[in-house]
Amino acid sequence: MSEDETVPADVTHEEEIPEDHPRYQDLLTRHRIETGVEKGITHLQGMHAEGRGSAFDYLLGEETIPSADAAERAAAAHLLLADHPVLSINGNVAALVPGEMVDLADATDADLEINLFNRTDERIAAIADHLREHGATEVKGLEADARIPNLDHQRAKVDADGIYEADVVLVPLEDGDRAEALEAMGKTELVIDLNPLSRSPQVAEVPIVDNIIRAVPNMAAHAQELADAGEGELEGIIEAFDREEALEEAEERIRSGL
Amino acid sequence: MSEDETVPADVTHEEEIPEDHPRYQDLLTRHRIETGVEKGITHLQGMHAEGRGSAFDYLLGEETIPSADAAERAAAAHLLLADHPVLSINGNVAALVPGEMVDLADATDADLEINLFNRTDERIAAIADHLREHGATEVKGLEADARIPNLDHQRAKVDADGIYEADVVLVPLEDGDRAEALEAMGKTELVIDLNPLSRSPQVAEVPIVDNIIRAVPNMAAHAQELADAGEGELEGIIEAFDREEALEEAEERIRSGL
Repeated sequence: MSEDETVPADVTHEEEIPEDHPRYQDLLTRHRIETGVEKGITHLQGMHAEGRGSAFDYLLGEETIPSADAAERAAAAHLLLADHPVLSINGNVAALVPGEMVDLADATDADLEINLFNRTDERIAAIADHLREHGATEVKGLEADARIPNLDHQRAKVDADGIYEADVVLVPLEDGDRAEALEAMGKTELVIDLNPLSRSPQVAEVPIVDNIIRAVPNMAAHAQELADAGEGELEGIIEAFDREEALEEAEERIRSGL
Repeated sequence: MSEDETVPADVTHEEEIPEDHPRYQDLLTRHRIETGVEKGITHLQGMHAEGRGSAFDYLLGEETIPSADAAERAAAAHLLLADHPVLSINGNVAALVPGEMVDLADATDADLEINLFNRTDERIAAIADHLREHGATEVKGLEADARIPNLDHQRAKVDADGIYEADVVLVPLEDGDRAEALEAMGKTELVIDLNPLSRSPQVAEVPIVDNIIRAVPNMAAHAQELADAGEGELEGIIEAFDREEALEEAEERIRSGL
């Protein structure tokens, strides 16, 4: 698409992108993914996936719509109520929101676990280092001593004491096969995906149709605000969230515009 | 976006992508762009741009809608009537439709000219070689001895006997600034772009809202069919094409679905 080419590619640091640029968020996102590819964190196809997401975000108005905010609050409540919440990290997530995921893990006492579609030891190590540089103390996904049933490929690999035994899992930017396999294991899935029609949000208990760079900090803010909430209040927030309505509102927004 | 990750990334040749895959066209496109990046033809940001395009194509139904077919026929008529038609080639165009652009150039007696946003001698040479491997005999854009007025960056560079003096220019996947600058030079612009709201199709005489991998072969087919048509017939096809209606139909399709 043409619009992507209107800012030169020679921005070295994200601070060089003017904050008042009308497409600041999109340019920042693209720059972070590009840096991720260069660092070996993000697969080249992650650049394509991010471009795809950026078109949906453009149609969504590049803002957190009310139903997405409600989903993010419900997701925060799920994480706070969980016995063992895990935040799944792939190459795009690590490139886009490394510090923000660490903050969310801290706010909800969740584990961070790396899980890659195109898994190599080098990428796993690069992502673990990147997360630690952004404040992570423990990073799971390196052991990979358990398997998600009924799933081919490397992405079936998980940690036995991580995603395998988690009750609530945040899977941002996840592929449909894996989202379905996790759902079949009976886990409560929280999915971030900008296309409300793709399979991952369709199978999620909480589908969050929002840009991950807005969604994750907002989830952390909700979690911090709800830190002292009782179980009843958290359950009430979860009950009040209507996943069908959220998916419909997101699709309606994308289809019909503002 | 998640859906992009459902086919493994280790496809080495495009023949390995199953033709009956429901997302064959998208996978083929992504593979060609990825190969382009690896070959030094396509800038990394081209992968992002293509991903962005793929989302619009998904919403469009991944088919050439009737108004796009009409635009492609009108564009073919413009190229056939032109005194000096030029087809502009950037890194994504070269990666996606090298042979198809050569065929279109042959069918309309047009020049092929390389023009890059992120211009380097290496990329220019790689693209020229790639086009020649796909049958191109003459490739312009290497001299770069003229400039498009009122345009910064490397993309102002054009050949004096190419785009600079052309009367009709096909600019696929072009950025808005350059499309506007060419329009200001009084050229008849034919633009291929999957987002009907971006500036390039908005300023084009003929906006073609279609995937380039469908659009270019279809333009060549129209040109071949119209090879013996008289001026009157070609002018009639151009007159009958309504650019506003085409833009509206494309937006309507993207917004409301099938």
